[in-house]
Amino acid sequence: MNYSIGLDVGGTKISAALVQKDKILEKIKMPTESEKGRPYVLKKITEAVDSLLKNVDKAEVVGIGVGFPGLVDVKTGTILKAPNVPGWNNFSIQKFLESKFKLKTYLANDVRAMALGEKNYGAGKNYKNVICLTVGTGLGGAVIINNELYCGKGNAGEIGHIIIVDDGELCGCGNKGCLEAYVSSRGINRESKKVFGKVLPPLDIEDMARKGNAKAIRVYATLGRYLGVGIATLTSVLDPEVVIVGGGIAHAGKYLLGPAVEELKKRSINRPPKVVQAEFGKDAGVIGAAHLPIMGGLK
Amino acid sequence: MNYSIGLDVGGTKISAALVQKDKILEKIKMPTESEKGRPYVLKKITEAVDSLLKNVDKAEVVGIGVGFPGLVDVKTGTILKAPNVPGWNNFSIQKFLESKFKLKTYLANDVRAMALGEKNYGAGKNYKNVICLTVGTGLGGAVIINNELYCGKGNAGEIGHIIIVDDGELCGCGNKGCLEAYVSSRGINRESKKVFGKVLPPLDIEDMARKGNAKAIRVYATLGRYLGVGIATLTSVLDPEVVIVGGGIAHAGKYLLGPAVEELKKRSINRPPKVVQAEFGKDAGVIGAAHLPIMGGLK
Repeated sequence: MNYSIGLDVGGTKISAALVQKDKILEKIKMPTESEKGRPYVLKKITEAVDSLLKNVDKAEVVGIGVGFPGLVDVKTGTILKAPNVPGWNNFSIQKFLESKFKLKTYLANDVRAMALGEKNYGAGKNYKNVICLTVGTGLGGAVIINNELYCGKGNAGEIGHIIIVDDGELCGCGNKGCLEAYVSSRGINRESKKVFGKVLPPLDIEDMARKGNAKAIRVYATLGRYLGVGIATLTSVLDPEVVIVGGGIAHAGKYLLGPAVEELKKRSINRPPKVVQAEFGKDAGVIGAAHLPIMGGLK
Repeated sequence: MNYSIGLDVGGTKISAALVQKDKILEKIKMPTESEKGRPYVLKKITEAVDSLLKNVDKAEVVGIGVGFPGLVDVKTGTILKAPNVPGWNNFSIQKFLESKFKLKTYLANDVRAMALGEKNYGAGKNYKNVICLTVGTGLGGAVIINNELYCGKGNAGEIGHIIIVDDGELCGCGNKGCLEAYVSSRGINRESKKVFGKVLPPLDIEDMARKGNAKAIRVYATLGRYLGVGIATLTSVLDPEVVIVGGGIAHAGKYLLGPAVEELKKRSINRPPKVVQAEFGKDAGVIGAAHLPIMGGLK
């Protein structure tokens, strides 16, 4: 029982991998294409898992773990609400995959899956109390307390919706002043418009920053400063050892995290935690998903 | 081993009590008078404990628990930093009381002691994940996760310093926009000045609110609304079952908590927790402190 299958489903891309602890032995990437309908996507997922299982003794595979963006029911492996993957609400991916492959299957929210990967094998492995953030289209979060993923009444870790400016910018959730309204695609687009007069793709801005473009550096610095305010709040409440930041926009690394740490140091009443980039980058989700069958899923 | 001694030390008052679970069998209240020096205060505490022990078989007393306002070291029972009780920094009250009374003694921060009381016997007893707040001179907090007080790197629960307005009002900590800058004596004094043109004592404003005075009701509603913003942030991060609010300013009950709950419902992405007043009111601290020897102190 050495191997497991990890599936990281995103709004635009799906990764499927054969994983041994934190080692990806084989990985298949594909576009999600949810517009082609759920049966089509499920067929592609099935083919990918089939292909991964070809190169391994199935008796050695402990199970399948799935990370999915949205609200999920971990007990039944059902996707409850997935705004970025239309057509999957109330579908039990666990039931589907278990009947297809006769392998125990577990589901978790994608950020929680990423957090499990980073906690068990990556940037969080030496710490008991860890906060994970993913900065991309939105700002997702997961909270690990005393080495365990903490869920509260079920939905703890909605870090994108901590309020940092009482009467601030409008957030995707309909409220005002959430951290996600400042630190996300929405936030970077707003700053890009202010600084460049138009919306540039985040990866272009990152590229420009790396080449020393002062305006691009300023865009990331603004987002970073807000991120630091948010991490200061998390530090006051949870006093964690480390905050791990992943997701597409965090790919800018020091351009985002440098200003965040600077602001955190100014604003935090507690000793600041380490703030680090996700160690596994884009693979954190699939490695964490593959850890789900090893740990017997979430409670 | 049925009884314990609880000591709740405050900046202005000290309560000492002989406690059996959540029942106060005898209580002694006195002014702190820290200006008269630590030896004087210790003498009064010693006399109070002596008096409490008179009416009970000492073999039946499990120990002494102390709640103290400030940063403490629970391992050595030492007060590290107590801004509101001058002259006690780096003093081990545990060592002092143990040598005086030959009873195991434990120390905790006062809000954490209050949280232990409410969690074990009061408004939190039926819940696993509980947040306690005390609104008074400052805004203190304590976080209970999976039935245990959570401390993080040591100082989790500094809820007064979550940032709700990035560039907001000055807080006592030197930073801007902390929840405590809005919901505390400082906050109520500011609103009182705005609404009444002068600073009225909070208890007078509470009294006026109870008699239907619209201005007084408005002062509490403003504080309550800010409190709701803070609880919304806590709900996004921790998704707790219940938030318990104690402290002098929370004595206003519905005038503070009504508007807080209303704002929380608007601002929270997660299902709002119950928001309730501390069940033991002013006795929560001493009941919680008395619980420390029963649980063998904090880790």
